[in-house]
Amino acid sequence: MAKPKKQPRPKAVTPKGFRDYFGQEVSQRAQMLQTIADVYHRYGFDALESSAVETVEALGKFLPDVDRPNEGVFAWQEFDEGGNGDWMALRYDLTAPLARVYAQHRNDLPTPYRRYAMGPVWRNEKPGPGRYRQFYQCDADTVGTASMAADAEICAMLSDTLETVGIPRGDYLVRVNNRKLLNGVMEVAGVLDPENPEKHSFERGIVLRAIDKVDRLGPVGVRELLGEGRRDDSGDFTQGAGLTEIQKSLVMAFVANDTKGSPSLSVISDIVRGGGTDKFSQTGMDGVRELEEISELLEAQGYGPDRIVIDPSVVRGLGYYTGPVYEAELTFEIFDEKGRKRQFGSVSGGGRYDDLVKRFTGQEVPATGVSIGVDRLLAALREKGRIAAQAKGPVVVTVMDRDRMADYQAMVAELRNAGIRAEVYLGNPKNFGNQLKYADKRNSPIAVIEGGDEKANGIVQIKDLILGAKIAESATLEEWKERPSQFEVPRGDLVAKVREILDSQD
Amino acid sequence: MAKPKKQPRPKAVTPKGFRDYFGQEVSQRAQMLQTIADVYHRYGFDALESSAVETVEALGKFLPDVDRPNEGVFAWQEFDEGGNGDWMALRYDLTAPLARVYAQHRNDLPTPYRRYAMGPVWRNEKPGPGRYRQFYQCDADTVGTASMAADAEICAMLSDTLETVGIPRGDYLVRVNNRKLLNGVMEVAGVLDPENPEKHSFERGIVLRAIDKVDRLGPVGVRELLGEGRRDDSGDFTQGAGLTEIQKSLVMAFVANDTKGSPSLSVISDIVRGGGTDKFSQTGMDGVRELEEISELLEAQGYGPDRIVIDPSVVRGLGYYTGPVYEAELTFEIFDEKGRKRQFGSVSGGGRYDDLVKRFTGQEVPATGVSIGVDRLLAALREKGRIAAQAKGPVVVTVMDRDRMADYQAMVAELRNAGIRAEVYLGNPKNFGNQLKYADKRNSPIAVIEGGDEKANGIVQIKDLILGAKIAESATLEEWKERPSQFEVPRGDLVAKVREILDSQD
Repeated sequence: MAKPKKQPRPKAVTPKGFRDYFGQEVSQRAQMLQTIADVYHRYGFDALESSAVETVEALGKFLPDVDRPNEGVFAWQEFDEGGNGDWMALRYDLTAPLARVYAQHRNDLPTPYRRYAMGPVWRNEKPGPGRYRQFYQCDADTVGTASMAADAEICAMLSDTLETVGIPRGDYLVRVNNRKLLNGVMEVAGVLDPENPEKHSFERGIVLRAIDKVDRLGPVGVRELLGEGRRDDSGDFTQGAGLTEIQKSLVMAFVANDTKGSPSLSVISDIVRGGGTDKFSQTGMDGVRELEEISELLEAQGYGPDRIVIDPSVVRGLGYYTGPVYEAELTFEIFDEKGRKRQFGSVSGGGRYDDLVKRFTGQEVPATGVSIGVDRLLAALREKGRIAAQAKGPVVVTVMDRDRMADYQAMVAELRNAGIRAEVYLGNPKNFGNQLKYADKRNSPIAVIEGGDEKANGIVQIKDLILGAKIAESATLEEWKERPSQFEVPRGDLVAKVREILDSQD
Repeated sequence: MAKPKKQPRPKAVTPKGFRDYFGQEVSQRAQMLQTIADVYHRYGFDALESSAVETVEALGKFLPDVDRPNEGVFAWQEFDEGGNGDWMALRYDLTAPLARVYAQHRNDLPTPYRRYAMGPVWRNEKPGPGRYRQFYQCDADTVGTASMAADAEICAMLSDTLETVGIPRGDYLVRVNNRKLLNGVMEVAGVLDPENPEKHSFERGIVLRAIDKVDRLGPVGVRELLGEGRRDDSGDFTQGAGLTEIQKSLVMAFVANDTKGSPSLSVISDIVRGGGTDKFSQTGMDGVRELEEISELLEAQGYGPDRIVIDPSVVRGLGYYTGPVYEAELTFEIFDEKGRKRQFGSVSGGGRYDDLVKRFTGQEVPATGVSIGVDRLLAALREKGRIAAQAKGPVVVTVMDRDRMADYQAMVAELRNAGIRAEVYLGNPKNFGNQLKYADKRNSPIAVIEGGDEKANGIVQIKDLILGAKIAESATLEEWKERPSQFEVPRGDLVAKVREILDSQD
């Protein structure tokens, strides 16, 4: 008889592209989510939590004839005798589920429906450094109104939110654009025909890509790409869009650059009215009017250009949105992995998208919303030292006498009842050094010691571990011997002395 | 040419067994999780958030030769050219991921490792009424210590947690048992041979099932099943375990019943010492000693039988745990779906399990932990009226003049800056009745109205919607006409008057 095969041990690893979050990372994120939720809630937004799992059909990212729909999402087929079970998938954002929820419950929900949602989303993408396949989003959307007041409100709320979580005014900027502006400029420049959107799509592609490359190529390079084309340093030639001089100038007015900054709304307004050509773009004018309306609403509420600006150079998400788009950028500089200074960049983006619910119901339902990248925002606050990189651990009560565990547990209970985080050492107490090593690993501020002698004399030893570490780093042997970081106090003064030391450490 | 097939609209439905949570349901759960996390944290437990996705191998629930491992979990195969991608799955609890995390990071983690975790888990089970395939767990575990002080600590923490979230002392009881007791009794009763656990497994199965049925069958019925067997009212005969009279008495001493309550530890102690037979159970004695130790530790800290009791009749999870087991039960009565009074029952359970990390590392790692059913706890608090079933909505500022949206947004900003939840109506403002209907659907306490006349006179109308609804229910036409629920105040008094009305509504 064959020997039964021994089962190999499972590997203790996270799946590729996933990670674990420990201690401080978890509680700081929870706290930030709660803070953001409070702001959203005060603005009248209601919480919504849909499940992590949706039907692939409702998420709507796949062709129905793709056998295994794993492009971009994690999906699986429900078990079913005939193999005809539904395909289900993990949500890849919080907007697609909102569309499903609104379509499903629209008769019970208020209209307009302001909702916020927060939680993990999953992407079946190739993981990379700092790119994970599960991450948090924190969204607020208003469904069922075409009013620009909804967009203005979300921009104001975004500004309030950033300040509430600890980004001071001046360290961030909410920038607002409208995708109708660029469409308008392209109409006037003759690369977009509103009657026939398919026409000029080749040239339009070149124009869009050129605009997107301004940071790298500079205005001169962009201009070359708008015209005949551009030869790079290596000698490679990229074909251009073949625009005329006047067409090029129209598009270039739209391109932000370091010397002149972003184009003003009045410049754009002149362009979409014709800008020296015989064309006129209604779409462009609509975009200008919408931005003016948002701008007026925000100014009336005191949200000036120190917080929110109209900026026609914002290209973010232009392919996805149908009207206003907005993003929040942190404007302070940080050092990147290679030690170079750069702006921290975007932590939030959003805009108006009007085909949200239509997929399900056939009726048009206008909507606008924003998503905050909570993990990036946390990284920014850590970078600026506004939240602690490492948390203080609990007070550790050491175990000198295994039989008096009840005494030690009574001590931690006293400390906790006074609101002080505290724990008793639960490992093998034999080696006292191990207990202090444990306290060190826990990042404990204080260790409490009560051996038989102390017990008999009604006292406890309280060790200031933070001061102790400082002394150990810098003190002479004489100073060290005096051990001024350890205090002997009556047992009854335990809580008071621990509190005193904790206060002195802050 | 065939007409291109029109794509059918997707159905707006949650997948089978999943549901959406709205407003209050979401925020109350978030608040409870935070409250519990605060207690766990004060006890020295550190947060851990592992990803929702684990390898099927690490979760360890499946045979490797099952082609599609969908028994109990939602699983899928990673895409891979050769079809050899890893199987991944959604976690079905928070304990299996803890085992993987501890095995993976054990060199960086403190030992013992106290950790808490909270979040959704997923079960691929047949959904039923009130049974969902995604639900929340909130766990605390201590890994790496065999000390009973760890179990005592978790019982104390469970008691503290319940009181902190709003279950008063007297309305709950933490009951502690040890699975070694029942094993010990079965050894003495001759249905468990510690040298040969396979032996007597048939009789043992009958004994275990009989004990489990005491609530339904009563002690007489259980005793029949321990002996020859039992004939039920329908005439069906269930074969018994065939125990002798003395064996039956030993087991029966272990069975709780209404007249004598649970057996005391000293009764069990007598049994596992032999109880009139020539047997002696070391396992049973170990169990007694462990419970005595837990009991002493808890008593020394003042956790008396009004909060935590040793109760050898607790059978919960006996198949899973290796030592102490504990559960928290809410002791007040509620009415079930059929209008019958019953105890609310268990909201939490846990115990010691010592094979947790061994699967990965081969080394034994003792561990103990508890899981709180947050959704059941919320249901209990709602049942007792301790948290509001429906939240107050925001103050709604109505729109009388579409062009003065900025004025209305300024009003809500003022209210919000004063900490009052407020929103402006963003739907089509043409029909004022719709605005009041909207406020009603939002469960708004107050509507604010400022038309052209009010604006010109520097005043606003403030409508107390809750008082209004009360008057509408009970008032005569005369009283109704006087409309004492609507107030006219200077624009500058908006915030003060709204606050006054809100306070009067509490």
